[in-house]
Amino acid sequence: MTSSLETVTFDAVPEPDTAAREQAIARQAMLTKPAGALGRLEDVSVWLAGVQGRCPPVAPTRIRVVIFAGDHGVAAAGVSAYPSEVTAQMVANFVAGGAAVNVLARGVGAGVRVVDMAVGSDLPGLVLPTEVTKWKVRRSSGRLDIEDALTRQETVQAVTAGKAIADEEIDAGADLLIPGDMGIGNTTPAAVLIGVLTGHDADLVTGRGTGIDDDGLARKRAVVAAGIERAKGVEDPLVLMQAAGGADIAAMAGFLAQAAVRRTPVLLDGLISGAAALLAQRLAPGASAWWAAGHRSVEPAHALALDTLGLSPLIDLGLRLGEGSGALVAVPIVAAAADILGGMATFGEANVSNRG
Amino acid sequence: MTSSLETVTFDAVPEPDTAAREQAIARQAMLTKPAGALGRLEDVSVWLAGVQGRCPPVAPTRIRVVIFAGDHGVAAAGVSAYPSEVTAQMVANFVAGGAAVNVLARGVGAGVRVVDMAVGSDLPGLVLPTEVTKWKVRRSSGRLDIEDALTRQETVQAVTAGKAIADEEIDAGADLLIPGDMGIGNTTPAAVLIGVLTGHDADLVTGRGTGIDDDGLARKRAVVAAGIERAKGVEDPLVLMQAAGGADIAAMAGFLAQAAVRRTPVLLDGLISGAAALLAQRLAPGASAWWAAGHRSVEPAHALALDTLGLSPLIDLGLRLGEGSGALVAVPIVAAAADILGGMATFGEANVSNRG
Repeated sequence: MTSSLETVTFDAVPEPDTAAREQAIARQAMLTKPAGALGRLEDVSVWLAGVQGRCPPVAPTRIRVVIFAGDHGVAAAGVSAYPSEVTAQMVANFVAGGAAVNVLARGVGAGVRVVDMAVGSDLPGLVLPTEVTKWKVRRSSGRLDIEDALTRQETVQAVTAGKAIADEEIDAGADLLIPGDMGIGNTTPAAVLIGVLTGHDADLVTGRGTGIDDDGLARKRAVVAAGIERAKGVEDPLVLMQAAGGADIAAMAGFLAQAAVRRTPVLLDGLISGAAALLAQRLAPGASAWWAAGHRSVEPAHALALDTLGLSPLIDLGLRLGEGSGALVAVPIVAAAADILGGMATFGEANVSNRG
Repeated sequence: MTSSLETVTFDAVPEPDTAAREQAIARQAMLTKPAGALGRLEDVSVWLAGVQGRCPPVAPTRIRVVIFAGDHGVAAAGVSAYPSEVTAQMVANFVAGGAAVNVLARGVGAGVRVVDMAVGSDLPGLVLPTEVTKWKVRRSSGRLDIEDALTRQETVQAVTAGKAIADEEIDAGADLLIPGDMGIGNTTPAAVLIGVLTGHDADLVTGRGTGIDDDGLARKRAVVAAGIERAKGVEDPLVLMQAAGGADIAAMAGFLAQAAVRRTPVLLDGLISGAAALLAQRLAPGASAWWAAGHRSVEPAHALALDTLGLSPLIDLGLRLGEGSGALVAVPIVAAAADILGGMATFGEANVSNRG
């Protein structure tokens, strides 16, 4: 990985397979149920047919969660209920298999990988696998309320890393990717980025993250307002990530953009993936056609991001953990949508009368 | 099965295990995530601990869907987009494994059983297994807008059958029950029953069911209004089922009540199970503590039923199929909730710092 890159670009994003989508729509109307009676499951089956390029689609069999971990300089401003050292501790927890994302991934047969993009602290005695550390850009980030989060080179390096990680996963056979996040303070840059990219102010995009109290929320709102003030009007996604992102979020944006370039479907998670998705859509226009929204977070900025992306969440269970957890809870819904289209009998096959 | 019974009663419903619930709440606070960050998954884990009487709870391993099939006299009033013969055809489709409920059940490892409580027509050449037919009460039902749906004896017989079916399933080891429904016209009695039991009029409880057009909706609304007028003020659940139910709905109510008596958790499906649950709660007060709501149907009366039951749906995907389909889509959420409580590391185990 060279750090002398000036920019990073993406190939054009192909469109999902229109013929497969149309076949899926036609087949849904032939299945032994009233037309439309399976609601969003029918929509998901059509999306899956398009991104897999076949009808019926199949339930994904090699699902990979990639958790982009990084600390954030703004944590020093008291925007989180937890100390920054938790980021490194949770990376160790992911590697050991004890976090929510690990449990939920086991439940749906998904693999979990964590990449340290910008973790700020070390854990004494812990040696992480190369797979975790090889893409690391720096420790933590600049305080986005008063300075750039990253340099230009760090930004390009992080996006390039995310792009390469997508290539690694897809080359290894992934057929559904899930972006996860871990980073104390990371809801602050996400709120700033979504505020700038959707045109909403700090009051509307700032949430309680891990659960800060009212004083903390007031501090966080001021930090988000300062970040939006510094970054507003920026159109170039790389410049915006430099101003208000972080190596973890920039890498996730590169990952999401490249997944679309490589025709690989993605199930988005919560707030952080919403911010990264807005950036990725700018890095690689058309990428959002390859994504579905796993869930809606309680963080207020997330719904704004999904609206701008034109995506509707599959579940809304009051989750606000990140890690990829919300998307993993939604995986069985995607599988069910595929199974329905492939497994149900048609009116003709079952000798069931259709409506008059 | 004698048909001379005058009534049917249920033993007292026990309370779920308070100690196991409290242990679950305490354990959620020790897991490596911000308190409350898994939202409804945490609530479900606490419910599951209570109904299983252990902490951590385990994901259900013997899930059984029982589909209560029956025709309805009101179908003759033009309240459905499909002909009544579809009920029998779909029973055959369930037995053959080609319906949505079969596909979704296979996806989560659940078993499916269909019971013919009041199917109106026969399929030439089709001999159904005894397991399907042995509880049949009658063919179809009276037109609830102008006459009772059932006699007293039929009502008691149907509730008694549902009670016995719950016993059969629980004795065979079921650890999660799902009530399913099939019956052209069945959203009409369900709307009437919910209207009477929640105090809402026909305009608020009448939906499009399988997808009737505007003329059909107007006809259906008038039928529902007439049914509510005939049944309003009735407090006794057996009398109400006699007036406006059907053998399928009455059996489902008995099934739900007895499941609670037998300390067996239930994941409710959509509109029909909402109506049956309101009845079951009257047959066996306290039963709703043993139930979770799988999904919210697009049928307007369903949300009213869930509100009255004090239950919040796990998913809301625009489903309106019945059969148990919505509950089956929610099964992995229940499993995930159990897995989280049993599988995640605590702050202490993982050496992760808790909030200051």
